[in-house]
Amino acid sequence: MLRGLLANLPTGRGVRLGPGDDCAVLSTSARRLLFTVDALVEDVHFRSGWLTPHQLGRKAFLVNASDIAAMGGRPRWCVVNIAAPADTPAEHLAAISRGTAAAAGNHGAVLVGGNLSRARELSVTVALLGEAPSQPITRAGARAGDLLFVTGTLGDAALAVRQLQTGSAPRGTAVRRFREPTPRVAVGIALARRRIANAMIDVSDGLLPDLRHICTASRVGAVIELARVPCSLQVRRVDHQLALTGGEDYELLCAVPARHRRRLENLAARCHCPMTCIGVVVPPRAGVRVVDAEGQAVVASSAGHDHFARERR
Amino acid sequence: MLRGLLANLPTGRGVRLGPGDDCAVLSTSARRLLFTVDALVEDVHFRSGWLTPHQLGRKAFLVNASDIAAMGGRPRWCVVNIAAPADTPAEHLAAISRGTAAAAGNHGAVLVGGNLSRARELSVTVALLGEAPSQPITRAGARAGDLLFVTGTLGDAALAVRQLQTGSAPRGTAVRRFREPTPRVAVGIALARRRIANAMIDVSDGLLPDLRHICTASRVGAVIELARVPCSLQVRRVDHQLALTGGEDYELLCAVPARHRRRLENLAARCHCPMTCIGVVVPPRAGVRVVDAEGQAVVASSAGHDHFARERR
Repeated sequence: MLRGLLANLPTGRGVRLGPGDDCAVLSTSARRLLFTVDALVEDVHFRSGWLTPHQLGRKAFLVNASDIAAMGGRPRWCVVNIAAPADTPAEHLAAISRGTAAAAGNHGAVLVGGNLSRARELSVTVALLGEAPSQPITRAGARAGDLLFVTGTLGDAALAVRQLQTGSAPRGTAVRRFREPTPRVAVGIALARRRIANAMIDVSDGLLPDLRHICTASRVGAVIELARVPCSLQVRRVDHQLALTGGEDYELLCAVPARHRRRLENLAARCHCPMTCIGVVVPPRAGVRVVDAEGQAVVASSAGHDHFARERR
Repeated sequence: MLRGLLANLPTGRGVRLGPGDDCAVLSTSARRLLFTVDALVEDVHFRSGWLTPHQLGRKAFLVNASDIAAMGGRPRWCVVNIAAPADTPAEHLAAISRGTAAAAGNHGAVLVGGNLSRARELSVTVALLGEAPSQPITRAGARAGDLLFVTGTLGDAALAVRQLQTGSAPRGTAVRRFREPTPRVAVGIALARRRIANAMIDVSDGLLPDLRHICTASRVGAVIELARVPCSLQVRRVDHQLALTGGEDYELLCAVPARHRRRLENLAARCHCPMTCIGVVVPPRAGVRVVDAEGQAVVASSAGHDHFARERR
């Protein structure tokens, strides 16, 4: 049981009863809730030494918060399941749950319960409940002619994984983004409230795989111009394609009617969140294509993101 | 991703958007929500062959529903995280999620989302959200003089684990109760609605450990009369102490003011749920004691429930 570890956590808004009983008791006046779950598993999502226990607990919250952000919601309450080998030091378990609680607190949410199991490998599963102040933005509303925008830059987390895997000294920005993604909560809420975006997703699997999720759900195609895909200097120097297929950047990708372009740019400025137009939604028969500045097709090197696929299968 | 597996699940009450997007979207008019999480891990909670994939998925829901029942709530929506070795057949994964969805459906709840990760061992984590129609019953309200009641019978699940571990042919009732616990949802809701119980918990760790949770939270002691602890003939024949310390029965244990005894018995009859008075709440200095019919102390053989503790530590 995680009760001992969670007993002294601060409670917060809407928490009538926090950890320590059979369930947490929450009070809400929201009529629309968002619910999601995600897990980080050792040797699948990270290797021993890549994340401190506190960073692992933080990241397990943040990747879920990104899913809430991608629908225009606000993270509110989470529960955590930690599965760990019997010889895991108690202070590591405490640090994981403190990390989850701290990340939740930083985003206006509260860790309200948890469970601890033994297991052969370390994993942290967070289920997160959010409130949607406005009609949520799904993956299914993109229309031909919409512009495709992405927040921030892409490829850094994948570059960090490459550096960590090869044992080369990981550089600051990339590894920081792998260890502590920034869910785009404020931008997501603003986009939903102003009804600016027709469809949205967070880039967790990689730009192309996640764009395909939008295209499938919306029954459309898309054309991306490689040179426009925003990435750090470091990624551009090493391999610009990391920005197409690298996962775990947790930026938002959205489809926006061309008439809302100015409104979107104003919103991005107000939220201090860079948003870049990387392409356009097209009719479905075209599929998802990546082109260079002359409109010639560029072949993406890999279909998606699966850190250890080759090693583990 | 579990999206493919979950895509064709029926949706249900209060589900605006089911599996397949970044989050599920729920609508609720409840002001009080209950939130809990629990996991079943191979070689910790079960061994390969003890549960079919469908039974495993079912049980992962049911143990969470029991936590909701223990506070007087109604299960509503759940998400499931399945972690499985890469060579797990796809039909097993599908059967697990179908089992979770089926058990949810049987209890008026809906499986609204999920996630699939690779891992070295199979585990199923369910996070369940419930609604509380009345003020939830916590562990903390028991008072000296309250009577202690338990639903159903205790010890069968522990007997089944013993039979399964030794390879002896598991007998019908016990192993059925291990494989498919019955969360006492209707009784829990009725107890909360009528304000009959001062404190309640579900017996997941074992009667004595869970009674201690109530005593600690309520700052009281308790006296249990061993002969009154209800168990099946099979358990009585093999080892009555299994009813004290065996886990996973998922019955409800509650503390009820003596003046409500008749109301409780009427309620139990209406719910077709046997409830047995097994003892009394006493002042805290007495701790938790088990006595025989003459009031002489009986020593319990084990402090609690931990199937594989010796083997894995």
